[in-house]
Amino acid sequence: MPSAVSAPLAPDLDSFSLAPGFHTAATACGLKPSGNLDLGLVWSDTPCAAAGLFTTNRVQAAPVLVCRETLGSAAARVRGVLYNSGCANAVTGERGLADARSMRALGARAVGARDDELLVLSTGVIGKFLDMEKVARGVEALRSASSLRAAGDAARAIMTTDTRAKLASVEGVLPNGRVRLSGFAKGAGMIHPHMATMLAVITTDARGEPGALDRCLRAAVARSFNSISVDGDMSTNDTVLLLASGASGVPIDAGAEPAFTAALTQVCGSLARQIARDGEGATRLVELRITGAADERQAHRVGDTIACSPLVKTAIHGNDPNWGRILAAAGYSGEPIEPEHVRLWFGEGDAVQLLHRGLPLAFDAARASELLRQDPAIVHLDLGLGEASAVVWTCDLSAEYVHINADYTT
Amino acid sequence: MPSAVSAPLAPDLDSFSLAPGFHTAATACGLKPSGNLDLGLVWSDTPCAAAGLFTTNRVQAAPVLVCRETLGSAAARVRGVLYNSGCANAVTGERGLADARSMRALGARAVGARDDELLVLSTGVIGKFLDMEKVARGVEALRSASSLRAAGDAARAIMTTDTRAKLASVEGVLPNGRVRLSGFAKGAGMIHPHMATMLAVITTDARGEPGALDRCLRAAVARSFNSISVDGDMSTNDTVLLLASGASGVPIDAGAEPAFTAALTQVCGSLARQIARDGEGATRLVELRITGAADERQAHRVGDTIACSPLVKTAIHGNDPNWGRILAAAGYSGEPIEPEHVRLWFGEGDAVQLLHRGLPLAFDAARASELLRQDPAIVHLDLGLGEASAVVWTCDLSAEYVHINADYTT
Repeated sequence: MPSAVSAPLAPDLDSFSLAPGFHTAATACGLKPSGNLDLGLVWSDTPCAAAGLFTTNRVQAAPVLVCRETLGSAAARVRGVLYNSGCANAVTGERGLADARSMRALGARAVGARDDELLVLSTGVIGKFLDMEKVARGVEALRSASSLRAAGDAARAIMTTDTRAKLASVEGVLPNGRVRLSGFAKGAGMIHPHMATMLAVITTDARGEPGALDRCLRAAVARSFNSISVDGDMSTNDTVLLLASGASGVPIDAGAEPAFTAALTQVCGSLARQIARDGEGATRLVELRITGAADERQAHRVGDTIACSPLVKTAIHGNDPNWGRILAAAGYSGEPIEPEHVRLWFGEGDAVQLLHRGLPLAFDAARASELLRQDPAIVHLDLGLGEASAVVWTCDLSAEYVHINADYTT
Repeated sequence: MPSAVSAPLAPDLDSFSLAPGFHTAATACGLKPSGNLDLGLVWSDTPCAAAGLFTTNRVQAAPVLVCRETLGSAAARVRGVLYNSGCANAVTGERGLADARSMRALGARAVGARDDELLVLSTGVIGKFLDMEKVARGVEALRSASSLRAAGDAARAIMTTDTRAKLASVEGVLPNGRVRLSGFAKGAGMIHPHMATMLAVITTDARGEPGALDRCLRAAVARSFNSISVDGDMSTNDTVLLLASGASGVPIDAGAEPAFTAALTQVCGSLARQIARDGEGATRLVELRITGAADERQAHRVGDTIACSPLVKTAIHGNDPNWGRILAAAGYSGEPIEPEHVRLWFGEGDAVQLLHRGLPLAFDAARASELLRQDPAIVHLDLGLGEASAVVWTCDLSAEYVHINADYTT
């Protein structure tokens, strides 16, 4: 990774700001019964180039379909993003699609743009229609000065079961100058490789064409949002959006793409780890380092399978060095692992080895348990098959996860 | 299913018996610190034809490898099965394999058979060596009259986190006479389609060749053990064994295979539902009926994906009719479902419809919640793509699941 990129920053709510040229507003329009912020708007003074990546679920929410439509034209420029929490507008048929288009038009008019120059995001309960009266009144409120809120509040308006806002901001040093990349995300349950109920809005003042933005975003997401898993569920609404205002005048040309991608990967990686750490009921981040794989795809698949195993995640929650569950999960990943080549460690710097080439080692159980208690808890599995590696993040699984999810709609 | 098969019976511990010609013994040899029964033996007076199905995990426990070896010869006859709980003898390398062979020889000598005429099963913690001194002393104890125990006790000796023994017994009416099929199983956690930490021993007094037994067992398992899921984990030890003593003299010839398969499917289905119902921390059985699929494979895949979704299972635990999670899970099953064709109901006889061809319906939430509270809770999803169907069983997911699994080894 180029050293020209500043360290990633997960700022606090008060000091957080988007990239130069972007504004934020937020309000509580009543979609959330709690009265918390549930409608937010991010917009730019000038038209932005944009790129988006979306859920691969066959059931795609109306706002996902509308964003795809908006970004479908290569020449598309957008002015911002209007988003709500409290209702996913998913599995709502033609009426839901019309509602998402109306929401897009309301947001576009609020910032003085054409109807098709806005992006929309929704998150919340599936299978309910969006209350368009509330949304319309809310957008009206967003236009008033009192709704002009700090970016931290805009980030809070996208939260559902999140216990904290996810924010990240870095400075990227491109060949022709410095740019800012700054974004926020939501996600706590239903997080899975391939982006499940995970929404992210990333802004930059760099200047780039949609094609370049799309390439950089795909590369960054592969090593960040697509490397986390909380519970293996994949939502109907997942979206990552990147908006480039160009306010800095610094171009993302061919020579600048690697540095911009590196900076974007840092922002996405920080947001992804914040999401995994905030998994519903989670008490710690779990970092799975898979090495010695035949190729990167294999390393990812083994890591994803372990990251989705409830037995592994409950054992980590209990600080229980029951490592056989990790091996069992690797064994059913579908990859042709060879048990007699596998090695396993817990902790930073391979602190405690538990398995050596398929044979259990005597180990200090108290020390191993202590390592699982760390945040992040680090598990290193070497497959002994090749040179490829991957890092996958997940969280422990607690009884609180069940309490949260057993009564989410009621 | 032929009507000539008696209703499946899940007998109580006291009245349970294996098929005529089989005997049982059980003891506590100290593998379980609790002092509960942990070693059992099932044997026949005469050599039996046998068939077995095993885990598809790449990491296969030593007893699985030894059973495969034993059954490898088409002419193989076995006299019985020796099994232990408290230690899985998995991920134990060459030493574990030698231990499993020693265990096989100990059991064979106990019943006066050749070393390779016995099958062995182990279940418990992965990555620990079997204490062969305890096993040897235990087998010695099994030979004494005081260890001759009712079949119900033999079924208890195979339990780990199971809260109850799983027993099933039916009479099959074949063209040339009546036969008994009777077996027991264990399994509560790590249960998955394709048989994960699930052990079953099924006996019959029918007379059949290994090839016929294998065909019947594969057909029965596809519609029973491979249609249940508790947590998506798949173990290193799963095994289903079928032993046919021939004591009844009634043959499983070509004309008798359909009736025998139907009876065997009833026994396996009853055991599978008992396992799903006894999922760790579960409070009820969940029956997923998938209809309108393009083919049976698709119906199974959609059902399996829903059955493995923690969000669906926690919602059912909370009696929460949050049906969007069911649609979302179907959507990421990998099958090309079409949301606009999908219909969804809760309850027997499609009591409450929630979704009609992709559109949410107004429904009585209290009534829907009440239906989820039933045991079994019935969910019916029609994909609207064809005529094929499948039934998949799972259980709800409670906080107790986490408590059980966060400290299983410690």
